[in-house]
Amino acid sequence: MARGGPRPVGEAFAALPVAVDAMGGDRAPGEIVAGARQVAETTAINVALVGRPGEMGDVGGLPWFPASEVIGMDDDPGNAVRRKKDSSLVRAAEAVRDGKAMGMVSAGNTGAAMASALLRMGRLPGVIRPAIATPIPFPGGPWPTVLLDSGANAECSPAMLVQFAQMGAAFAQRRYGIEKPRVALLSIGEEKSKGSPLEKEAHGLLAEGMGGSGFDFVGNVEGRDFFEGKTDVIVTDGFTGNVALKTLEGSMRFLIGALTEILGRPDVKETADALYKHLLPLAAALDPENTGGAMLLGVNGVCVISHGSSSSVAIVNAITVAHDLAVGGLVDEVAASVTPID
Amino acid sequence: MARGGPRPVGEAFAALPVAVDAMGGDRAPGEIVAGARQVAETTAINVALVGRPGEMGDVGGLPWFPASEVIGMDDDPGNAVRRKKDSSLVRAAEAVRDGKAMGMVSAGNTGAAMASALLRMGRLPGVIRPAIATPIPFPGGPWPTVLLDSGANAECSPAMLVQFAQMGAAFAQRRYGIEKPRVALLSIGEEKSKGSPLEKEAHGLLAEGMGGSGFDFVGNVEGRDFFEGKTDVIVTDGFTGNVALKTLEGSMRFLIGALTEILGRPDVKETADALYKHLLPLAAALDPENTGGAMLLGVNGVCVISHGSSSSVAIVNAITVAHDLAVGGLVDEVAASVTPID
Repeated sequence: MARGGPRPVGEAFAALPVAVDAMGGDRAPGEIVAGARQVAETTAINVALVGRPGEMGDVGGLPWFPASEVIGMDDDPGNAVRRKKDSSLVRAAEAVRDGKAMGMVSAGNTGAAMASALLRMGRLPGVIRPAIATPIPFPGGPWPTVLLDSGANAECSPAMLVQFAQMGAAFAQRRYGIEKPRVALLSIGEEKSKGSPLEKEAHGLLAEGMGGSGFDFVGNVEGRDFFEGKTDVIVTDGFTGNVALKTLEGSMRFLIGALTEILGRPDVKETADALYKHLLPLAAALDPENTGGAMLLGVNGVCVISHGSSSSVAIVNAITVAHDLAVGGLVDEVAASVTPID
Repeated sequence: MARGGPRPVGEAFAALPVAVDAMGGDRAPGEIVAGARQVAETTAINVALVGRPGEMGDVGGLPWFPASEVIGMDDDPGNAVRRKKDSSLVRAAEAVRDGKAMGMVSAGNTGAAMASALLRMGRLPGVIRPAIATPIPFPGGPWPTVLLDSGANAECSPAMLVQFAQMGAAFAQRRYGIEKPRVALLSIGEEKSKGSPLEKEAHGLLAEGMGGSGFDFVGNVEGRDFFEGKTDVIVTDGFTGNVALKTLEGSMRFLIGALTEILGRPDVKETADALYKHLLPLAAALDPENTGGAMLLGVNGVCVISHGSSSSVAIVNAITVAHDLAVGGLVDEVAASVTPID
C-alpha cells in the first residue's frame, strides 16, 4: 500500500508524470535526458526527471524531482539504498509512492532499482517476493516471450514460482493483450520428472491448478525453446533466469559481432552493403533497446528497469511502456492475480 | 576400479578398439556406422561397433560386440539400463569395463549413456558424482571453453562443484594442452557475494585453494561471458549448466536459421552466394559436430557422449577424441586430480 496517502485516480492519475532516473545508466545523464525530452516533445505523456539539477544538461523545460546523490552501477544495492536516501533512484520510487508520479524508469543499478522500489513502494499484499520480468524478443512471433524471474531472487521456493507464473501472466496479458497467456516452467527436460526438487514441486503445484485460471500451464520448456513459440511466459528462479538471459544475450552479441566483423572486411564490404537492408529488420527485432525494458512485478507501483547501456531509444520505449502499464492498471491486475500459497 | 579384471597396458591397450554404440542417436545406425568405418579406413585407430548385427547395414568388415536390445532416446535412463541388460549402451560400457575396449562413444540417450557408464565402469575413487563436460566452441580463441556439469546432476553440493573444477581442469589440460587451466564459477555477478548459497560456498572453497594447485581459480563469470575468453573451464551445477548450454545452442540455431532464411530469399540469394565462402569458417567453428562431443568425467573409463543429431562427421570426431584421451591417460589424470572434500 502506498504509504504516501491515497493515489490520484482517473484523469488526475493519467496526468501524472513518469519519473525518470536521469543519473542511472552507462550513458546517463545524456541519453536518458534525450529520451525523456523526446517523449515529452512528441507524445501526450508527462515526464519528470529525477537527479542533480546542475548535472542533467539542457532538460528542455522538463520538470524534475531534485536528488543530490547518485547510486553507482557497482554499488552494493542494499547498502546504497539504505545510505543514499537522497539518491535519484530512491527519490524516483518515493515519487511513485507519494502519488507524484505514475511510475518510474531507471537504467541504473538493477539491484538498487529493485531495492528502492521494494523498500519505498512496498510489496503488493500476499506477494512473497517481487520478480523481474524481461521480454525476450521473438522475431517472427506475435510478441516477445516474458522471462521471470530474471535476477531478483537467487533462491526461490515452489510457491514463489507459482506466484511468478501468476504475475507474469498478468503482465503478458496487459502488455501484449494475450487473453490467456501460456505459461511454462524452465527445466532440463519436458517430462515433469525432470529438474531439481524446486521445479518438480512447482510443476506439481501448477499442474494441480494452484496458479488459478488466469493462464494455461503448458508444462516444462528447455533452454533451447526460447525461440520456439511454445509459450508466452517462462518461469524460473532468479539464478537460472539470470544465467539464461545473459547466455542468450551473450550468444547473440557474439554471433552478431562475428558476422559484422566478416561483413566489414575490405574484400567483402561492397557485397555486404547490398545486404544490410535485408538484415536490418532482424537486427531491429532482436535489439533489446526496442523491447521497453524489464519490469519489476509484485511491488505497489510501476517500475521499469532499462538495460544499463540504454540509449535514448531504449528510454523512449521504457517511458512509453511505464506510462501504458500504469494507466492500464497493471499493478491492480498483478495484485488481483496473486494468491497466497503455502 | 574395473570389475572385469586388470586392464591391458601399453601396446596391448593402444591396440584395443573404441566401442561405438551403433544403435544410439537420431541418425543411427547409418551415420554412426559410416563414421566408424571412416575412422577405421583412414586412421590407425581400431573401432568396434556395438549393436544388432542384422541391423547395422554394411559394417565394412568392422568387428562388433553383439547386443540384442536398444535403449530409445526417450526411455527413462535408470529403468532402461536396469532392464535392457543386453542393450548396445550397456554392452559398450561393459566392453570398457572388461578391458575389451579402450573407451566408448554414443550419440544415444544421454542419461542412459551416463547410467550405463556409471553402473558398469564404476566411479573413480573419491568422486562424489560424475559430471558431463561439454566443449563450447569459441571461434577466435585457441580452444573451446569447457562447461561442466552440463546435465548429469540437477542437484549439487559445493564439494561437488570443487571436484568438477578439478576434473574439468584435468580434462582441459589433457584435451587442449593447457598447462594450468583457468577455472571459473558460473554465477549472476562477478563479486563473490553473488549467487545462491551453493555458488557462494563453492566460491569460498575454491578461493581458499581447496581445489588444489592443478588450476587457477579466476572467480565468477556470468552467462554473457561464454565467448569472452576469460576462462578455460566453467563450473556449475547440472541444472544451470544444462539450461545455459541449451539456451546458447538454441540462440545460435535461431539466429543462424533466421539469417539463412534471409540470405536464401530469391531477391537476395545471388548477392548472398558470394558471401558464403566468407561465412563458412565461422559456421564451421561454431558447429558442435566439430567439437568431438561431451565427456563423462569421474567414471573409470572413457565415455564420449555425442549429440543426438550426430552425423558421421561428429562420430569421426568423437571416436578420435575418445581414442586420444584413452591412450593419453585421461582417466588416470582425472582420478589423480580429485581430492575428497567435506
